[in-house]
Amino acid sequence: MIDIETIDTLNQLNIDLQGDVSSPLGYIAGGFHAGLRRKKKDFGWIYSTTEATATGVYTLNRFKAAPLKITEDSINVNKTLQAIVVNSANANSCTGEKGMQDALDTQAWVAEHLNIEQQNVGVASTGVVGAFLPMDKIHYGTQHILKEEYNNSKFFNQAILTTDTATKHLSVQVEIDGKTVTVGGSAKGSGMIHPNMATMLGFITTDANIDEDTLDYCLKQATDQSFNMITVDGDTSTNDMVLCMANGQANNSKIDALHPEWHKFVYAFNFVSQYLAKSIAKDGEGATKLVTAKVTGAPNVKEAKKIAKSIVSSNLVKTAIHGEDANFGRIVNAIGYASQFVEPNETNVSFCQLPVLEQGIHLEFDEELLKERLTEDNIVIEASVGNGDGEAAAYGCDLSYEYVRINASYRT
Amino acid sequence: MIDIETIDTLNQLNIDLQGDVSSPLGYIAGGFHAGLRRKKKDFGWIYSTTEATATGVYTLNRFKAAPLKITEDSINVNKTLQAIVVNSANANSCTGEKGMQDALDTQAWVAEHLNIEQQNVGVASTGVVGAFLPMDKIHYGTQHILKEEYNNSKFFNQAILTTDTATKHLSVQVEIDGKTVTVGGSAKGSGMIHPNMATMLGFITTDANIDEDTLDYCLKQATDQSFNMITVDGDTSTNDMVLCMANGQANNSKIDALHPEWHKFVYAFNFVSQYLAKSIAKDGEGATKLVTAKVTGAPNVKEAKKIAKSIVSSNLVKTAIHGEDANFGRIVNAIGYASQFVEPNETNVSFCQLPVLEQGIHLEFDEELLKERLTEDNIVIEASVGNGDGEAAAYGCDLSYEYVRINASYRT
Repeated sequence: MIDIETIDTLNQLNIDLQGDVSSPLGYIAGGFHAGLRRKKKDFGWIYSTTEATATGVYTLNRFKAAPLKITEDSINVNKTLQAIVVNSANANSCTGEKGMQDALDTQAWVAEHLNIEQQNVGVASTGVVGAFLPMDKIHYGTQHILKEEYNNSKFFNQAILTTDTATKHLSVQVEIDGKTVTVGGSAKGSGMIHPNMATMLGFITTDANIDEDTLDYCLKQATDQSFNMITVDGDTSTNDMVLCMANGQANNSKIDALHPEWHKFVYAFNFVSQYLAKSIAKDGEGATKLVTAKVTGAPNVKEAKKIAKSIVSSNLVKTAIHGEDANFGRIVNAIGYASQFVEPNETNVSFCQLPVLEQGIHLEFDEELLKERLTEDNIVIEASVGNGDGEAAAYGCDLSYEYVRINASYRT
Repeated sequence: MIDIETIDTLNQLNIDLQGDVSSPLGYIAGGFHAGLRRKKKDFGWIYSTTEATATGVYTLNRFKAAPLKITEDSINVNKTLQAIVVNSANANSCTGEKGMQDALDTQAWVAEHLNIEQQNVGVASTGVVGAFLPMDKIHYGTQHILKEEYNNSKFFNQAILTTDTATKHLSVQVEIDGKTVTVGGSAKGSGMIHPNMATMLGFITTDANIDEDTLDYCLKQATDQSFNMITVDGDTSTNDMVLCMANGQANNSKIDALHPEWHKFVYAFNFVSQYLAKSIAKDGEGATKLVTAKVTGAPNVKEAKKIAKSIVSSNLVKTAIHGEDANFGRIVNAIGYASQFVEPNETNVSFCQLPVLEQGIHLEFDEELLKERLTEDNIVIEASVGNGDGEAAAYGCDLSYEYVRINASYRT
């Protein structure tokens, strides 16, 4: 399990570190080995016993993989889903018309097997780019969905992984209208030994009763502060996707923008999203540390995000942290090229809680103490870059030999 | 010496691989050990026997180091320089008012020693960020400028280096108005063991007689196609700068935009800039290969540049090339997230001259042949991303264990 801080600042949540997409009422998740990988589980499913309101966010990569296109189109029919299937080992990307047909066939097989509507099936793939799906194995997989012995959400959490070193999942409960509403999530991150790229897939389920536009907005704002704020190596894959289902089985009164406890749902939803996002960052390929950059004082949130991301994306910052080196100049550097709105003379930086730069000028600091703090697993960099209101946090990891080893040699 | 292709496509140049900033008429360059580094040369100069027209391009990092600000302001007084001094080991960056005064003092000492005007002295520093210059050593350095035994341009080329593994220099000659005009250059790249960041410094000298605005434009357009198109790790330092001097001693008729052979000067100037830029890319920290990405078919040059840079900047592409792995999916990926104007269905990619993607669909290719070509030192990726006229090339290097080693441990 990945050690990520879970501080419920508003003290409103019941957090289950063992929870996942199957935790909310009415969801079954499972997975098994369909033969796409040598031995590991490679095919998984999430099923809701009732039709669920659904939404998704999709990669901005211009080369969108076939399963994303099919899933996005399907969700857009009615804003509903009832099942999601995921295969690892093959991304079904750069596969042209045949890839589209393969994704559609997969969807049709699942729909038939579960006796649900085809557009209520989401399909996701992660793995090698530029190879066709082995459709015999995919077909074999679809015929095993919901088989009793494979209906175990742990199997789902495992089946979606590639080079991740650990499963990533969580659920939280919050009271809304006196009803217990659960939000659960499972994700895979940027392990790229065998697949061609840093695919991240996220799945969030809830039993909340929620309006479709509200769910859509909820996912988008959560993604902007979580999945869009992590970086392992700055590469965005053709298959990145977060899907969300809400089946209403908690029986709360429908959540919309006017619901008096809407903020509690957002809080729970964002908590799950941020936990999953940080788990992905911390389990980046070869990573040994989670790096958090918190930026304040930017003229607006957009600039704050650019600066925070610049810090956690810098190879020089990442290698310094890997080497546990108090090299704050690289942080200043990454701030300085991120945004034209940085005010050097009003910039303060602290590194592991030690002030290292004040009003643009380096400070004397206790280098031994900083080096000691750099041996910890969670490294926090704080930067105030001016007098604006813009704030943001970004999450990343260190850059290690292991990263190079994994990515230089995975196919040989 | 770094092995960079020098193909004079127009067959107009006399290329001297041993040439440098001292090759044009009227320049003396030198360097010596002033004591900032343990043993290596750390203080260098370029001197023109007559006042030269001058211009510069400066980092876009918001934290501009003191020597850049002083040099930029000085050049802007009259668009002239007569001397440039450079120290390695210390960047004089994040040093506030004291840093500015130190740069001014350096400039004044040089001016007095050489009996030239203070604003005709350019100052450049590269090294650790966040430490004050050792002014006793700098003063000692300034008193040795032009001493006979140190007046050797090889010493200059060495004194400006940090973790570079080789000096970077070239000169070319071209006939203009029947006169021989020489353009010479020396540069240092992104070796960052001791300094905090990827500082690049470039110095270009010429004996051409050229109008100041024309020289300014010439440097800007050349930089856009050379120094601005290289990446080692995407980090832009507080000290990046390219300075250019033209002392007119070739006695050609003054070059301006209407000069009938202006294009020949541009050709020579760009040749030197691109050679130096590629040398920097190839000698990036831990690099073993030069990676060139050529993009065509973009809607405009700006988008073409974004895409070309995205390819050579991707850690996944860089590690694959380090591992000599035919992993073209990562290239497609880096193209796809670089620009919204990429047309997946009209995108073709070739990797070491082998087509791997056609109209967005992966091709069968001879993987053994590609692997063999990947063992070479110069790797070329070509991508056509649509039907536009935009073309660009970007230069980078592979990402190796050595990069991580250097940057994770340089201070310990």
